[in-house]
Amino acid sequence: MKQSHLFTKTRKDAPKDEVAKNAQLLIRAGYVHKEMAGVYSFLPLGLKVIENIKTIVREEMNKIGGQELSLPALQDKNLWEKTGRWDDKVVDNWFKTKIANGTETGLGLSHEEPLTNLVAGYVSSYKDLPFSAYQFQTKFRNEMRAKSGLMRGREFLMKDMYSFSATEEQHLEAFKKAREAYVTVFKRVGLGEITYVTQASGGVFSNELSEEFQTISDAGEDVIYVKDDMTAANDEVLADERVVGMGFSKNLSEKKSIEVGNIFHLGTKYSDALGLKFKTDTAEEKSVIMGCYGIGIGRLMGTIVEALSDENGIIWPESVAPFKAHLLCLAPDDENVKMLADDIYRELEGNVLYDDREHARGGEKFADADLMGMPYQIIVGKKSHQDAIEVKHRKTGKVETKSMSEIIEWLQSK
Amino acid sequence: MKQSHLFTKTRKDAPKDEVAKNAQLLIRAGYVHKEMAGVYSFLPLGLKVIENIKTIVREEMNKIGGQELSLPALQDKNLWEKTGRWDDKVVDNWFKTKIANGTETGLGLSHEEPLTNLVAGYVSSYKDLPFSAYQFQTKFRNEMRAKSGLMRGREFLMKDMYSFSATEEQHLEAFKKAREAYVTVFKRVGLGEITYVTQASGGVFSNELSEEFQTISDAGEDVIYVKDDMTAANDEVLADERVVGMGFSKNLSEKKSIEVGNIFHLGTKYSDALGLKFKTDTAEEKSVIMGCYGIGIGRLMGTIVEALSDENGIIWPESVAPFKAHLLCLAPDDENVKMLADDIYRELEGNVLYDDREHARGGEKFADADLMGMPYQIIVGKKSHQDAIEVKHRKTGKVETKSMSEIIEWLQSK
Repeated sequence: MKQSHLFTKTRKDAPKDEVAKNAQLLIRAGYVHKEMAGVYSFLPLGLKVIENIKTIVREEMNKIGGQELSLPALQDKNLWEKTGRWDDKVVDNWFKTKIANGTETGLGLSHEEPLTNLVAGYVSSYKDLPFSAYQFQTKFRNEMRAKSGLMRGREFLMKDMYSFSATEEQHLEAFKKAREAYVTVFKRVGLGEITYVTQASGGVFSNELSEEFQTISDAGEDVIYVKDDMTAANDEVLADERVVGMGFSKNLSEKKSIEVGNIFHLGTKYSDALGLKFKTDTAEEKSVIMGCYGIGIGRLMGTIVEALSDENGIIWPESVAPFKAHLLCLAPDDENVKMLADDIYRELEGNVLYDDREHARGGEKFADADLMGMPYQIIVGKKSHQDAIEVKHRKTGKVETKSMSEIIEWLQSK
Repeated sequence: MKQSHLFTKTRKDAPKDEVAKNAQLLIRAGYVHKEMAGVYSFLPLGLKVIENIKTIVREEMNKIGGQELSLPALQDKNLWEKTGRWDDKVVDNWFKTKIANGTETGLGLSHEEPLTNLVAGYVSSYKDLPFSAYQFQTKFRNEMRAKSGLMRGREFLMKDMYSFSATEEQHLEAFKKAREAYVTVFKRVGLGEITYVTQASGGVFSNELSEEFQTISDAGEDVIYVKDDMTAANDEVLADERVVGMGFSKNLSEKKSIEVGNIFHLGTKYSDALGLKFKTDTAEEKSVIMGCYGIGIGRLMGTIVEALSDENGIIWPESVAPFKAHLLCLAPDDENVKMLADDIYRELEGNVLYDDREHARGGEKFADADLMGMPYQIIVGKKSHQDAIEVKHRKTGKVETKSMSEIIEWLQSK
């Protein structure tokens, strides 16, 4: 894509009320726009990152048999009354509104109730189980204070999967598969080395422990204790004897971290309340055992920025970058330079962002490329020729010299 | 995909309160689930149709230079007050709610205001124009009565594109390109022959005529007068002398129709109100000229069902079908039949829905396949062998006999 065609531009400054590094960088680089506190628009380059993350998550959910669907934002109050979660005293961050005919409705802050009710229409026998269903859907949470940029929004995109099992054995198998898929997701988005499977409390859902996926970051609001290169425990459960028994304690390395995903045992809380039952092979009626598995897609984008950026800007991992490389034409008024850059662009159109701007100086182009964070910068200047073009690695700053054909072959294979 | 793995099932009956044919068929076939009046969930097969339609629309919007982004549902009241559209007396179908800190907000029923405001942060010169930006986003409209199934929902997915131009000439060029892209979209989704570019009133937006894309259907709420195989006029503008001048009148063929898209001239209504200005090459300050271009994605899915179904069920065009073909194994307990069907499935996994259910009778499988509407049915029964397998065309009922390798080659090439 040609940068001159992109309607967004970089900015020197983020809005003054925006204190989180992730939002500051994403706004300055032209990836997101702040609409209100906790509410962001995704601009063309930002949406590409979101779509890349979604593709990775979707592939991993599909691999473990997840069936994708899409539930609405508007919620049927009757369903939430059955589980006791409609009451503002129980769930204090609802957005509620009214349909023109006077019926109260609310904006989905999660989707256990409608999905459990929906599934009850299709499940009657143990033969219909187990299965998992998931969606990418906007959640609305009426936080008193929205903070931390994309980390804690009032409106945000989430992947939520739910598993439905006939037996505890099936449920534990689904839970284990989800855990493995999550480990793969965080590896693929470039956070594998700093993300830990973390023991955590089951919250309001269950007495059983849940697991969070926590990414080390100074911007984190959580504190975890890291045991080895894969596992940790949340500070809330360090006193739990099950957690102590796994070898966790305050003596381990203490880190600030961001919760990028979680997997919960729901037991039969929702299936009991909403009548999701099945007949066993001996015609006994039982409630379906459920699990739920969340990843905040926008939060994950923000976490990548928090964890991997440097003082000059964002550093996208290749897997989620809007473009693999940023092609910089440093002297667009020099015919030879322009022709060489145009030639490279023609071959790599879909893979590179081409800074073809005529009136931007070289220094500005370098600064923008560092801020915007494509993994590689292909630098075409007066000294460049077909056999010698500089390629800078955004992360390490290392510069290599490659021929045009090498660059094309290398990026086309990505 | 194996039908035995799909958690949804077909149903004999739709909910009693559902009178629209599109929703009845889509619910019975397991494509959508009704949450509340005017609010539907998209089940795995239904979401595939939605995604196929989105892909076609996205490709055509990208071809004319549209830049995809994503704006939020929660709206900043201040922006809508500037255009006078916050007031319930002016716009009577808002869903409004309050943020925990007391600030009023509303759910986006359209996105002119936030996008105009956003774009104003990036446009300052004629050199920044023209461009177009679009999104696929949920709209919320608080209709007193939600009716017609997917045709008029309270929550629905829409593609809305907006063009931003410096001159009337640029604007008319953008408008013309959008018209051509829309003609292509409706052709590609299988409605080309019954969809008309229709002269219509500019509504509250403009004195200029707008254009609607109207698809002939008995379920339609609109009435159009058809001039030739491409163009028509809405009954609301038949008295307009500009429309008379184009040769439209009550004497033309009158048809009931569904509005599947529209393209509007917005002029400078929004850019004036929200300060979207630019400097011309003579440093004169002017307001940006805007156009807007909508397609209801769910409504388009519903229209395809209304227009192309028959008494046995849905008939998807290949371009939007969840799977190209439905593979029916009529005798799963006959080892040879099962093996042949399994062999075909192995080669065509992503392209076919495989009715591998063990306990469903042949008649049930035929009825389900007709109801669910894949364009082709590959019928594997006791008389089938590698060189002779029946393929039924869902639309015409025509049956051909093909070899297994012919079927595989033919479907893989689709």
